[in-house]
Amino acid sequence: MNDIPVVVVGASGYTGAELLRLLVAHPRVHVVSVHAKTRAGEPLSTVFPQFGGQLDLTLEPLDPSSIARRARVAFLAMPHGEAGPTAAILHELGMTVIDLSADFRLRSPEEHAAWYGGGNHDPQQHLRSVAVYGLPERYRDKLKDARLIAAPGCYPTASILAIAPLLEAGLVSAQDIVIDAKSGVSGAGRSPALPYHFPEAGEGVRAYKIAGSHRHVPEIEQELTVAAGHPVRVMFTPHLVPMSRGILACVYAKPTDPSRPARVYRDALVARYSAEPLVTVLPEGQLPDTAFVRGSNRVHVTAAYDSRAERVIALSAIDNLVKGAAGQAVQAMNCALGLPETMGLVGGALFP
Amino acid sequence: MNDIPVVVVGASGYTGAELLRLLVAHPRVHVVSVHAKTRAGEPLSTVFPQFGGQLDLTLEPLDPSSIARRARVAFLAMPHGEAGPTAAILHELGMTVIDLSADFRLRSPEEHAAWYGGGNHDPQQHLRSVAVYGLPERYRDKLKDARLIAAPGCYPTASILAIAPLLEAGLVSAQDIVIDAKSGVSGAGRSPALPYHFPEAGEGVRAYKIAGSHRHVPEIEQELTVAAGHPVRVMFTPHLVPMSRGILACVYAKPTDPSRPARVYRDALVARYSAEPLVTVLPEGQLPDTAFVRGSNRVHVTAAYDSRAERVIALSAIDNLVKGAAGQAVQAMNCALGLPETMGLVGGALFP
Amino acid sequence: MNDIPVVVVGASGYTGAELLRLLVAHPRVHVVSVHAKTRAGEPLSTVFPQFGGQLDLTLEPLDPSSIARRARVAFLAMPHGEAGPTAAILHELGMTVIDLSADFRLRSPEEHAAWYGGGNHDPQQHLRSVAVYGLPERYRDKLKDARLIAAPGCYPTASILAIAPLLEAGLVSAQDIVIDAKSGVSGAGRSPALPYHFPEAGEGVRAYKIAGSHRHVPEIEQELTVAAGHPVRVMFTPHLVPMSRGILACVYAKPTDPSRPARVYRDALVARYSAEPLVTVLPEGQLPDTAFVRGSNRVHVTAAYDSRAERVIALSAIDNLVKGAAGQAVQAMNCALGLPETMGLVGGALFP
Amino acid sequence: MNDIPVVVVGASGYTGAELLRLLVAHPRVHVVSVHAKTRAGEPLSTVFPQFGGQLDLTLEPLDPSSIARRARVAFLAMPHGEAGPTAAILHELGMTVIDLSADFRLRSPEEHAAWYGGGNHDPQQHLRSVAVYGLPERYRDKLKDARLIAAPGCYPTASILAIAPLLEAGLVSAQDIVIDAKSGVSGAGRSPALPYHFPEAGEGVRAYKIAGSHRHVPEIEQELTVAAGHPVRVMFTPHLVPMSRGILACVYAKPTDPSRPARVYRDALVARYSAEPLVTVLPEGQLPDTAFVRGSNRVHVTAAYDSRAERVIALSAIDNLVKGAAGQAVQAMNCALGLPETMGLVGGALFP
Repeated sequence: MNDIPVVVVGASGYTGAELLRLLVAHPRVHVVSVHAKTRAGEPLSTVFPQFGGQLDLTLEPLDPSSIARRARVAFLAMPHGEAGPTAAILHELGMTVIDLSADFRLRSPEEHAAWYGGGNHDPQQHLRSVAVYGLPERYRDKLKDARLIAAPGCYPTASILAIAPLLEAGLVSAQDIVIDAKSGVSGAGRSPALPYHFPEAGEGVRAYKIAGSHRHVPEIEQELTVAAGHPVRVMFTPHLVPMSRGILACVYAKPTDPSRPARVYRDALVARYSAEPLVTVLPEGQLPDTAFVRGSNRVHVTAAYDSRAERVIALSAIDNLVKGAAGQAVQAMNCALGLPETMGLVGGALFP
Repeated sequence: MNDIPVVVVGASGYTGAELLRLLVAHPRVHVVSVHAKTRAGEPLSTVFPQFGGQLDLTLEPLDPSSIARRARVAFLAMPHGEAGPTAAILHELGMTVIDLSADFRLRSPEEHAAWYGGGNHDPQQHLRSVAVYGLPERYRDKLKDARLIAAPGCYPTASILAIAPLLEAGLVSAQDIVIDAKSGVSGAGRSPALPYHFPEAGEGVRAYKIAGSHRHVPEIEQELTVAAGHPVRVMFTPHLVPMSRGILACVYAKPTDPSRPARVYRDALVARYSAEPLVTVLPEGQLPDTAFVRGSNRVHVTAAYDSRAERVIALSAIDNLVKGAAGQAVQAMNCALGLPETMGLVGGALFP
Repeated sequence: MNDIPVVVVGASGYTGAELLRLLVAHPRVHVVSVHAKTRAGEPLSTVFPQFGGQLDLTLEPLDPSSIARRARVAFLAMPHGEAGPTAAILHELGMTVIDLSADFRLRSPEEHAAWYGGGNHDPQQHLRSVAVYGLPERYRDKLKDARLIAAPGCYPTASILAIAPLLEAGLVSAQDIVIDAKSGVSGAGRSPALPYHFPEAGEGVRAYKIAGSHRHVPEIEQELTVAAGHPVRVMFTPHLVPMSRGILACVYAKPTDPSRPARVYRDALVARYSAEPLVTVLPEGQLPDTAFVRGSNRVHVTAAYDSRAERVIALSAIDNLVKGAAGQAVQAMNCALGLPETMGLVGGALFP
Repeated sequence: MNDIPVVVVGASGYTGAELLRLLVAHPRVHVVSVHAKTRAGEPLSTVFPQFGGQLDLTLEPLDPSSIARRARVAFLAMPHGEAGPTAAILHELGMTVIDLSADFRLRSPEEHAAWYGGGNHDPQQHLRSVAVYGLPERYRDKLKDARLIAAPGCYPTASILAIAPLLEAGLVSAQDIVIDAKSGVSGAGRSPALPYHFPEAGEGVRAYKIAGSHRHVPEIEQELTVAAGHPVRVMFTPHLVPMSRGILACVYAKPTDPSRPARVYRDALVARYSAEPLVTVLPEGQLPDTAFVRGSNRVHVTAAYDSRAERVIALSAIDNLVKGAAGQAVQAMNCALGLPETMGLVGGALFP
């Protein structure tokens, strides 16, 4: 049954490990090899002891033609800038490529160059128009048969799913959107550095990359612009919270009509997401908490209206490594290959 | 030297304990008794083992006339509604009363009734106009010789100190202020309840009391209205973060003139706080982190401008139990008694 | 395919929720109803938001005959003392009962009475000899077709799996075994209480129930006595660690012959567990860490010899809610029903 | 009044910062300069933002003769091997040196060479016999006028204070002592590395350096041998717990006479520590919890007897950075200089 051979490139990081956790449990997929640069040659179980006794593989250096011979799908969990060229080669060799880096997320070459560098001679520029933004809740149709998928960033996933329906429905203004997002530390990756050292990151909360300097800004704006139908600018502030996993996005927006009943905002989410298998609009009285989506590909959303301040708040909670990365990539693969979209993704959250 | 006798009423909660920690180290103060309702009769060291060997007192039931005979200053760390009547009695008996509840914070009887109930026949109404709002950075002069002090709430302290200078300077608009604040769990008090049970509160972040329903809203608006010189409405959203102490407030505001240089906002904080002994405007490149004010009465603030989104962000970090409660109460007492304002409050943060 | 109807009684606690998480993903099982006492009538998704959109059930009061008509297997996640009588009724009605309480763990009526009370007239006494101790790694054969299973305690599971092989092999003395175990806070259940209040339990570690007063002592001794072939007494000390899940057990024992090579102890674990599907003896150089078994039914073990002190140390890490409770109960059910033992239990750990 | 000039060498690590926190608050001391190697030239407040507005110093490279001219006391918070030669020079120049490294802790040259290397030609060997082991509770008299102090390790401090009185009193056997200790992550220092990366260290507990391989073993044995009057060997196992600060030591020992009343062990601690200003023997019913000594130089200890297993357990809780490092160093300085021993050390614990 596990008839679809896949590989994971960049398997020594958290996203790579999470991909493996999900792919091992996927009913149709078979992981044929795992790849990493600096730790190539090591058994996967020394890099990630949780796979001991479960997944007996050794990290290999990357050899594109060998990969293309053995596997049909490649998940790339590599750094920005390294993923693009690899994706190009594997795509050329006929593989279905799901890139979890930012290399194909921004459709505008100018925006990509402005935020990620590379200038005018970006060799992957033509591929950027081929790539499909891998957010199934918004691009399900385009993902069908897609061969190059740009898996969304974690903050954009949380932010877009919370507010895009309200923009689409014309309920909130495209001007003056403020996004205040909180992330667990795994979002910073597995490379040790002082801000993520346990005694520094524990028992403290802080904003970072304030004033619109985070690279997820243009990605959020690109997709909200599609939703709104005209240009959106957001003020986006990410925070680091002392927990390992999870993103909570709070999106503050102005109503286009302050006199609407308070319930219309949540109602709009209910209407938009009623058929979505992995998005739950919480019952009134419940608010999103990352604890309840930990380890799950599910999204918890809600919205409310502050009639005193005449502001809408839309909130969403995701697991940054699942719906914000590996789980969404698998969901996108399911779409691309024509498999049931939630295959391998129905495992519940780990709570507590 | 420790010639000023004080009492702490409500000493079995976190704010009470923090008051004791600070008062024991205060060079002029002497704690003559500690009071609590449900745990009266127990040694303080069974309620808070950290005081074993250090503060040999037993929790007593409250007896106002006995207190008034023995002490000059009373700190009330009691629930809202209970503090008011007690404060009235102790004030009548001639004590200096520092109330850490919300009972005297809102100067408008209508606002107080709207948010805290009590209707038109609030017996403490006349005292509410006597009480001084105990934020020394803004009411230092009025605190001199004050005999009834309403110690500010934790969220208001963090929010006001971050944004009031920019409102005062006319740099940001009084309209459309969004405050997204994150608190450690001690802010919820010491009474166990499911949302604060370790497995529920650990490894998760969530908003609560959204859409303007938190009782700190009118308090923030009252003080920002003073700063702005005309009515301010804020959208305020508190969050619970998996840490014990700390509040980070992010205040988003619109510039009154989008063309100003980005640095003027932080500069305005520098100018306003240059002589403040307990407020640090962080150097450019540093951002407030609650970890660096843990256990300290210091405030860390900064501000920045997002020229793309045309929004100002002002941030502050405090320890909710110190500058957000007990430390500020001691600072206000120092002001009231004519002591050096930072006496007993110069201890550094506990990091990590 | 999901042809085996099961119920979970006591579904409002952590063990109940974890049973549901695992049973929902089990390929042969179908959860027909969930039961709870105090929260009966509430949707499961308000008690545990993670099940929203995934498991549409309402908590029901317990009605044994109705349960017995609808389901084949009952998992009891009820308090000690309440589980026993319920188990007796359901067993009488023909169900396969897997009891996660301590009511059937101790085979000796005297020991049961001494540690759990109930005196000489325990109505479930005869059932205690019928019940099979649900530790598949040691009672796999007896579990086949068992109709009443006493799922082991969390500490006993971790402790027994670490040291029993060394006792069986005669490598360590049955005298003078010291067990120092560390547990996450979910082990204390979902009822809020001061010691588990986030600010009390975070950033602190402590022992509790010291000097042999924890009720898991006789259970550990019962099973180690079987392993050793003669009476074993242990000194057992549980600790509370600021994390939600996991148990690490460190077992200190004396070698029967101090002159053996250091590697024989780990080798004995390798030999004993080579065919076990869910026990991993870690490679030399790796040590058990609860982080790597979180959410998994896997056990990580190792052993080493301190030639200076002439002491053996055996260590194990489990997830207290999975291998220490719900996962092991499912594993035991698989054994009892003749299903593949690891069915529904192969999901990997959630790391980080 | 602050008439004693001191310096801190190695001020960019956690122990250095904790020394500064305590020394700034010390009534007699004045910090004249702070020194570090890699971060020399940076303001202290960029390395540790908590000192911003409080301690306006810049990290300087080490210049021994300049230091000796300016200061009377030097605290060395440097790595093992680097501290020794520096201490030798500063000692020669007439300073009082308090070395927080291990370079002078082991009195036996053979043991020092065996555990820390350096062979037979250790140039500081003669100083090792001059150095006083800086545990005031055991070496108060020798510390008077000491000019070279070896501040004890964190694990030895916790372990020795728990069990030494029982060995001295002949209540427990010198054979067969097992020490299971749990530490917060700050004990590993401020240099980022994978095991201390937040997502790796959070939500997990593990042993490390098992089977007697931790360098604190000979230090513990040296001091317990003094207490017992004959050679002691211990089995010592350190653990990493997901918290920033604190050590809990559980010492398991055999009674020399199993028939004694259970209370004699705790009574012996009470007798031994009744006059100690910073050691609290907890009342019966209370057990040490690192949360209650966080930020404090106080030690919480107790002991109990398990009559079933015939084993004694002695427990202690300390803050690894205070009583386990910086606080104890200040306490030792007070002894050496003839100041009141607890001067600057009476600040209470920060709880929660």
